[in-house]
Amino acid sequence: MIAPARTLSGADGLKRLSVATPAQPLRLDSGRTLDHVEIAYETWGTLDAEKSNVVVVCHALTMDQFAASPNPVTNRPAWWPSVIGSGKPIDTDRFFVICSNVLGGCMGSTGPASRKPDGSYWGTDFPIITIADMVRAQIALLDQLGIQNIFLAIGGSIGGMQVLEWTIQARDRVFAAIPIAVAPRQSAQNIGFYEVGRQAIMADPNWRGGRYLDEGTRPDRGLAVARMAAHITYVSESSLKQKFDRRLQDRQTKTFGFDADFQIESYLRHQGQVFVDRFDANSYLYITRAMDYFDLPNEHGGVLANAFRGLATRFCVFSFSSDWHYTPEEARDLVRALNAAGCETSYVSIDTDKGHDAFLLDEPEYEAALLGFIDAAASARGLPKRKQP
Amino acid sequence: MIAPARTLSGADGLKRLSVATPAQPLRLDSGRTLDHVEIAYETWGTLDAEKSNVVVVCHALTMDQFAASPNPVTNRPAWWPSVIGSGKPIDTDRFFVICSNVLGGCMGSTGPASRKPDGSYWGTDFPIITIADMVRAQIALLDQLGIQNIFLAIGGSIGGMQVLEWTIQARDRVFAAIPIAVAPRQSAQNIGFYEVGRQAIMADPNWRGGRYLDEGTRPDRGLAVARMAAHITYVSESSLKQKFDRRLQDRQTKTFGFDADFQIESYLRHQGQVFVDRFDANSYLYITRAMDYFDLPNEHGGVLANAFRGLATRFCVFSFSSDWHYTPEEARDLVRALNAAGCETSYVSIDTDKGHDAFLLDEPEYEAALLGFIDAAASARGLPKRKQP
Repeated sequence: MIAPARTLSGADGLKRLSVATPAQPLRLDSGRTLDHVEIAYETWGTLDAEKSNVVVVCHALTMDQFAASPNPVTNRPAWWPSVIGSGKPIDTDRFFVICSNVLGGCMGSTGPASRKPDGSYWGTDFPIITIADMVRAQIALLDQLGIQNIFLAIGGSIGGMQVLEWTIQARDRVFAAIPIAVAPRQSAQNIGFYEVGRQAIMADPNWRGGRYLDEGTRPDRGLAVARMAAHITYVSESSLKQKFDRRLQDRQTKTFGFDADFQIESYLRHQGQVFVDRFDANSYLYITRAMDYFDLPNEHGGVLANAFRGLATRFCVFSFSSDWHYTPEEARDLVRALNAAGCETSYVSIDTDKGHDAFLLDEPEYEAALLGFIDAAASARGLPKRKQP
Repeated sequence: MIAPARTLSGADGLKRLSVATPAQPLRLDSGRTLDHVEIAYETWGTLDAEKSNVVVVCHALTMDQFAASPNPVTNRPAWWPSVIGSGKPIDTDRFFVICSNVLGGCMGSTGPASRKPDGSYWGTDFPIITIADMVRAQIALLDQLGIQNIFLAIGGSIGGMQVLEWTIQARDRVFAAIPIAVAPRQSAQNIGFYEVGRQAIMADPNWRGGRYLDEGTRPDRGLAVARMAAHITYVSESSLKQKFDRRLQDRQTKTFGFDADFQIESYLRHQGQVFVDRFDANSYLYITRAMDYFDLPNEHGGVLANAFRGLATRFCVFSFSSDWHYTPEEARDLVRALNAAGCETSYVSIDTDKGHDAFLLDEPEYEAALLGFIDAAASARGLPKRKQP
């Protein structure tokens, strides 16, 4: 039996580095500080002598650092195999790729499921964190690794929020940036859906005011409901229709009961059930809260373009036509602001019925555009050419 | 203190009639029968001598029979004051209007919150019901009232499903029908959202396997989460943006906590909290299940038009441009089938950013179109002309 992510002990074989200590604590947007922060990370490929081939991959809400190799804790496969690997758009034969578990996460980085210095779990005593705080911790990690400049920051969804923050916080240290399926500010509708999930978790009596790890309970039912609600927003109505429509699950007729008669019910229940085995409920609260708080225009005097003015970073923004979690319209708001700021900006709009999750899936046009942009950026950066297959 | 709807005792002053008795039980689609069924209803206006001016109003999921006058149990105002009343499209000076609480509901009609003959509450021993079963009970009610033919059946959302069922079950007894903001079959996405709500209710330990009324508990937290999730689907993204956007609730800055910092959070929490005071959690399970099971094409040999072939009823279908719960595309599927069946069919598409709930709101174009269609139908039916204001 593998220990669930929520009780990772430090002796779990994950790579991590201390990025904050009492001498150099991590200062958070909330005004609080964290005196001890460990960030768990994974790398692929080889760092070149000039340290010029670094790709930072930022993960989404429920993912982790295992973008390109299986997670040894959960045994889940790599979550981005179509994008990262030998001969893939993020070619591990050319680039040194690093992905770290976000601050507040539950795959080895410090978060609400970690222990405080006194040995008890943080739980909801953990400070509220922001996307900017997550990126602060990532920059501290790269500093620890002796890496000053990065060739590319890339990520989808909340990973895309981190990419945008990287370009702002690490000014002149990010050569190229690919924010995918993301908006420059979290919409009211998204805040609403995540608030439904948080209320479901906090309504679970096993949540125990956030102290469930100390008390030995698990708010699994609440967390499963939260996951089910969110999952619907990650897929398009047309893909649900195509994949499930009103088909019945392993039965010929309706049962006239509350069992999962329909495949869509069975599928969502399954999504909820497998999620609770690999994710911490408080991490879900903290990371969704960080998403709620993400509002780049507001942090830059009400003008999104101000966030990017004067950046030398070259951007390629991706959106997916059927994504209603972060819509193409929101991506175009971002693209307009990048152009207004005078940044070198490409915009790729992919036609797909796969919804928000398309950024994780196999979409040939998407991969071709990623490959083209990354190759061109690598040439501009003076990196060695791609090996021809 | 008013007794919550869930414990209505029969001595609550609501009008009701027994529509099923052991001699004439109500046969349900599930194959089960109900030996005792009471239907609670409300009426407005005067029945004419020929009983030719009857309007049946069918209510939506969380509504009740108090369409045009305040609910004396909950003290909530009428839910359709812009549509029903003196001088309104459904003119109570001309028509005899009747609205009944659906079978399975919790405002006086028999449902899971009613008592069985042995005195205990039905709870989840109540049989699963369908939209067709609800309409069977409504037809039995009209039979009890001595009314054979109805001039108009009208309703929105699940009320629109009932309207469609009325025209099919009560063939040649419905002169005109107005299904509003409805689809001929429940989509996978909607099944999914309601399944999230059901799982939230059933995850609440106070649900007690459905026996909470006997055990004196209330699964309020689960029901509130269910309501929050559903509520988001009733409004459009653009109306959420317009009404709330990212505005903070009674504060100048973010609190860096899990309080309702944002107005949208506060609003959704409020929607959840007020709902539990007026609605029964098991009724929510049963009525949403009836919606899941609604699939007219499937019940008519896979061809929706078959459902309506040969009907003399004149239809006017309404949809709202920003409704993503029941989309304009789904309404047009219905309109195509009605035309294919040779029915006299109008279709009114209203441009609005108010989403699904627009059918309950004040929309001048919508009311004008309702008025025009109803007036023309009344003339065709030979009813007295509308009084000019």
